[in-house]
Amino acid sequence: MDNQEQLNNLRHTTAHLLAAAVVELFPGAKPTIGPVIENGFYYDIELNKTISEEELPKIEAKMGELVRSWDKAEKREISADEARKIFADNPYKLELINDLEKDNQPITLYKTGNFEDLCRGGHLEKPNQEIKAFKLLSLAGAYWRGDEKNKMLTRIYGTAFSTQEELDNYLNMLEEAKKRDHRRIGQDLGLFVFSDLVGKGLPLLTAKGATIRRELERFVVDEEIRRGYQHVVTPHLAKVDLYRTSGHYPYYKDTMYPPMKIDEEELILRPMTCPHHFMIYKSQTRSYKDLPLKIAELASQFRYEKSGELTGLSRVRTFCLADAHIVAAPEQAKGVIKDVLDLIDYVNKALGLKKREDYRYRLSLGDRSDEKKYYQDDAAWDYAENVLRGVLTETKQPFSEAGGEAAFYGPKIDIQVKTVSGKEETAFTIQYDFVMPKRFDLKYIDKDGKEKEPIVIHRSSIGAFERTMAFLLEHYAGALPAWLSPVQVQIIPITDRQNEYSQKVFEQLLSVGIRAELDDRSEKMQAKIRDAQMQKVPYMLIIGGREQEAGQVTVRTRAGDDLGVMTIDKFISKITEEIKEKKA
Amino acid sequence: MDNQEQLNNLRHTTAHLLAAAVVELFPGAKPTIGPVIENGFYYDIELNKTISEEELPKIEAKMGELVRSWDKAEKREISADEARKIFADNPYKLELINDLEKDNQPITLYKTGNFEDLCRGGHLEKPNQEIKAFKLLSLAGAYWRGDEKNKMLTRIYGTAFSTQEELDNYLNMLEEAKKRDHRRIGQDLGLFVFSDLVGKGLPLLTAKGATIRRELERFVVDEEIRRGYQHVVTPHLAKVDLYRTSGHYPYYKDTMYPPMKIDEEELILRPMTCPHHFMIYKSQTRSYKDLPLKIAELASQFRYEKSGELTGLSRVRTFCLADAHIVAAPEQAKGVIKDVLDLIDYVNKALGLKKREDYRYRLSLGDRSDEKKYYQDDAAWDYAENVLRGVLTETKQPFSEAGGEAAFYGPKIDIQVKTVSGKEETAFTIQYDFVMPKRFDLKYIDKDGKEKEPIVIHRSSIGAFERTMAFLLEHYAGALPAWLSPVQVQIIPITDRQNEYSQKVFEQLLSVGIRAELDDRSEKMQAKIRDAQMQKVPYMLIIGGREQEAGQVTVRTRAGDDLGVMTIDKFISKITEEIKEKKA
Repeated sequence: MDNQEQLNNLRHTTAHLLAAAVVELFPGAKPTIGPVIENGFYYDIELNKTISEEELPKIEAKMGELVRSWDKAEKREISADEARKIFADNPYKLELINDLEKDNQPITLYKTGNFEDLCRGGHLEKPNQEIKAFKLLSLAGAYWRGDEKNKMLTRIYGTAFSTQEELDNYLNMLEEAKKRDHRRIGQDLGLFVFSDLVGKGLPLLTAKGATIRRELERFVVDEEIRRGYQHVVTPHLAKVDLYRTSGHYPYYKDTMYPPMKIDEEELILRPMTCPHHFMIYKSQTRSYKDLPLKIAELASQFRYEKSGELTGLSRVRTFCLADAHIVAAPEQAKGVIKDVLDLIDYVNKALGLKKREDYRYRLSLGDRSDEKKYYQDDAAWDYAENVLRGVLTETKQPFSEAGGEAAFYGPKIDIQVKTVSGKEETAFTIQYDFVMPKRFDLKYIDKDGKEKEPIVIHRSSIGAFERTMAFLLEHYAGALPAWLSPVQVQIIPITDRQNEYSQKVFEQLLSVGIRAELDDRSEKMQAKIRDAQMQKVPYMLIIGGREQEAGQVTVRTRAGDDLGVMTIDKFISKITEEIKEKKA
Repeated sequence: MDNQEQLNNLRHTTAHLLAAAVVELFPGAKPTIGPVIENGFYYDIELNKTISEEELPKIEAKMGELVRSWDKAEKREISADEARKIFADNPYKLELINDLEKDNQPITLYKTGNFEDLCRGGHLEKPNQEIKAFKLLSLAGAYWRGDEKNKMLTRIYGTAFSTQEELDNYLNMLEEAKKRDHRRIGQDLGLFVFSDLVGKGLPLLTAKGATIRRELERFVVDEEIRRGYQHVVTPHLAKVDLYRTSGHYPYYKDTMYPPMKIDEEELILRPMTCPHHFMIYKSQTRSYKDLPLKIAELASQFRYEKSGELTGLSRVRTFCLADAHIVAAPEQAKGVIKDVLDLIDYVNKALGLKKREDYRYRLSLGDRSDEKKYYQDDAAWDYAENVLRGVLTETKQPFSEAGGEAAFYGPKIDIQVKTVSGKEETAFTIQYDFVMPKRFDLKYIDKDGKEKEPIVIHRSSIGAFERTMAFLLEHYAGALPAWLSPVQVQIIPITDRQNEYSQKVFEQLLSVGIRAELDDRSEKMQAKIRDAQMQKVPYMLIIGGREQEAGQVTVRTRAGDDLGVMTIDKFISKITEEIKEKKA
């Protein structure tokens, strides 16, 4: 039995223990299902009262009490009729029993202590010896079977580890992740706000938040143009027909905004940009000399996300993607993908992210047997998969492979980043597409004068700005590199007598484009330093009488380092270099 | 009688002449109304057949024939009953007669030659001597009384002048304006396209068009930030409730996109940005020290324009406005407006526009007796009007005043530009607003610790980028200043033997951020020069054997000037200076 299976059994039995404790404490409680999840478990229970997180310690205590007598986990297999008798007062279990019966599945019960549960197994052998370190984490509401037409149940999340030390480490990481939560940092640093009157999932970036975004945008646009991308600007909406042609509508209808009727036209906010770029491609005859044609845009996109899934800047209902569609001859695909990976490495390096440690690649393949989900063309899938795998191998990228994760129009490379809570997430993708060129009848005239069909590479270089901002804020715990910091320098006169000289220093910094603030409040220096540190301002220039006389400044970093006294010119050249080099 | 009245009479009588000719040529035609408009006249006529512009000369010839016998214009006043008998077979005139009768207006007819028309007057005394120079210009469809539920009539546009010379000048100007039409230039220079699949009024900017836009955007954002504006990024949509609070909805409903239902929220694409900015203002407590707070944004906005009114980039259904809302104490208003006018002058100068010649100001006042259209608060109107008039006078701006043109929430200053067809148009506005602060309950804490109500200045600095681009393309007939040109330099090797050296020059230009193209086609030099001139590229670098040997280039301008031979470094410093200085 491997470690993961052992850990899963530990958590599964602890989930039963949770249910047993709840049933004891809240008579009439009806346990439903309690699966193991990444990093822990939960149990959904129908309670006849609302409980708060303050009651979790009480449940933990009862779990600790009950587990003492849990010396084994006994399994028995029974008939559906017997099971229905045992769970006669639990409609959820009855539903599960009926489903098992319908599917001709065995019906098994596991008994630990006095608690017997309908369960397909995977338990500890000696719970009272093996359950040593567990913790209940949080509460949430959850509809039975995830369907909002059903009753709302109480979901209790918890986790368990083999040792107290492992549990403590995990809880510390959770605590740290909470501190690094970009929603909290965003509020502390005044980067963005939400408004009930504006709507859910629609963030408003303040001047400070917008500064980060503008720096990222200009960096990406300038670099892409340098690399031969054609940056265009297309409308945020289009006729529904455009998405009927692409095949996105009605298949993706549920994640799109509803259509708007304008005169005889039915318009819809765009969930993706590809069809707009194809319209630009098709606006003139293209020759092999034009390929690869790389059409890029800072593209506003709109997707309907369920309100329960909205999260700060990382899950929103409108976002701006650094998007591009590269139309190429099939034989150019390998070179194009290589260039894209090189750009992504360049961008990530500028953001201070380390390959392997902070991000890696995933080759997502299609399940070709699934005719509904994937376009049928074995030769095209083979060719495309080989191109992607070939590039990843040749350029020695760190990558894994995953089946059934491709787009319907071809395989893709996912850029997988590691979040502060240790999870791996897909930041954005590079997609190989051999279907859209057919749907949009894209063509180019080849050397031989014949009309041929190109392929399309869909890609981002930095992802959606909202999401990337959220990721960077968490990655840096708010202390962004100087080039991305909304305020790069805080000027701190020690007394009012230095205000005039400080004002001059302030203006000098502004005149060379450095984002500075002057803190001329009548506060103590220490308070001003503390505030600047809380605001994660990279540099503080402390100005007292001595500095004023010498025409200098004392430089402190937000980390608390004292860089000593220097002339303002020297400081300017230091920080200018740091900004230009995008030092992390 | 002044010149304008004389000219109006000339055009009015010529409109009758047009109707008379049409009735003769197309028996059964029913004239409806034929007013004088700016620069000419039209007549709406019900025809029982469709006619094309090719038939206009025939109508002109008939007009010339008929006018010979038009030696006078005889007026007679008759009763409504008599009039109804005369126009018994013309339902449009009958409707007009009934309206006149209802309003107790006199019913007058004017007879010229054999043609008698219902008309309130304003005619030449001796048409056959005075009608010397007229021209029919175009045809259009027009609904009776502008209501699409009514019948579609044929509208014939024409003009008339006192002398043939004046008419010729006018027709030449029209011809020139047609050549300068930004839709034509946009196509010739490949700046933007439209797509039936995307939708009406939704332009797609190609890389070249997007370059112009990006230059304008960055210029404005950087300058505004330098002047203390806080550039934010807010969503393109919001709950309808936001616009109910502002009072825009349902009053402006007809020019807004329809709402979209998302869960329980009703969302709508924004027709303006002010409420979003107020939400940022309200996200924290504001003190007098924060004022004036200048919240700016490159704001995507969406308005429903009738399909018949859509025009290239100048009338679209979505646009991006360089928008800002300045929240200020009432006593700061004057200083704020002064700063805004200074910014607009700065921006217009950078665009190469001359004050008085290319643009001037208009003070638009409210008609306070109109309680429906204007918010009632005499003291606030007085104060605001005096602030605006005071600033315009003190800073010696060229301006006129116009009544009944204000916003419902206060008076405004319009920035009036002169188009290539000689028309004056409002490019954008500066609005004084004392109503929104009440509706959104905006407050600030004053020096005395008391909560007070600020005022808001709505303003742009460069207008909507789409419209400004259209204006500049027409103003410069496509030959934009170097800093705005999508391609700044065309490199033209004379023979293939110079391609390698030319490639080096090309890369050197790109490396310093100059937008260059290399024309290494196997075409004759003259053809390449002509193409570059057609594309309005400011500079051509001609490279032959002589230039290659000396490591130099021959520089030509798009106007055809030969600037001689120079080193590439010298050319780079020349054009870099020109770009930096934004020379027109």
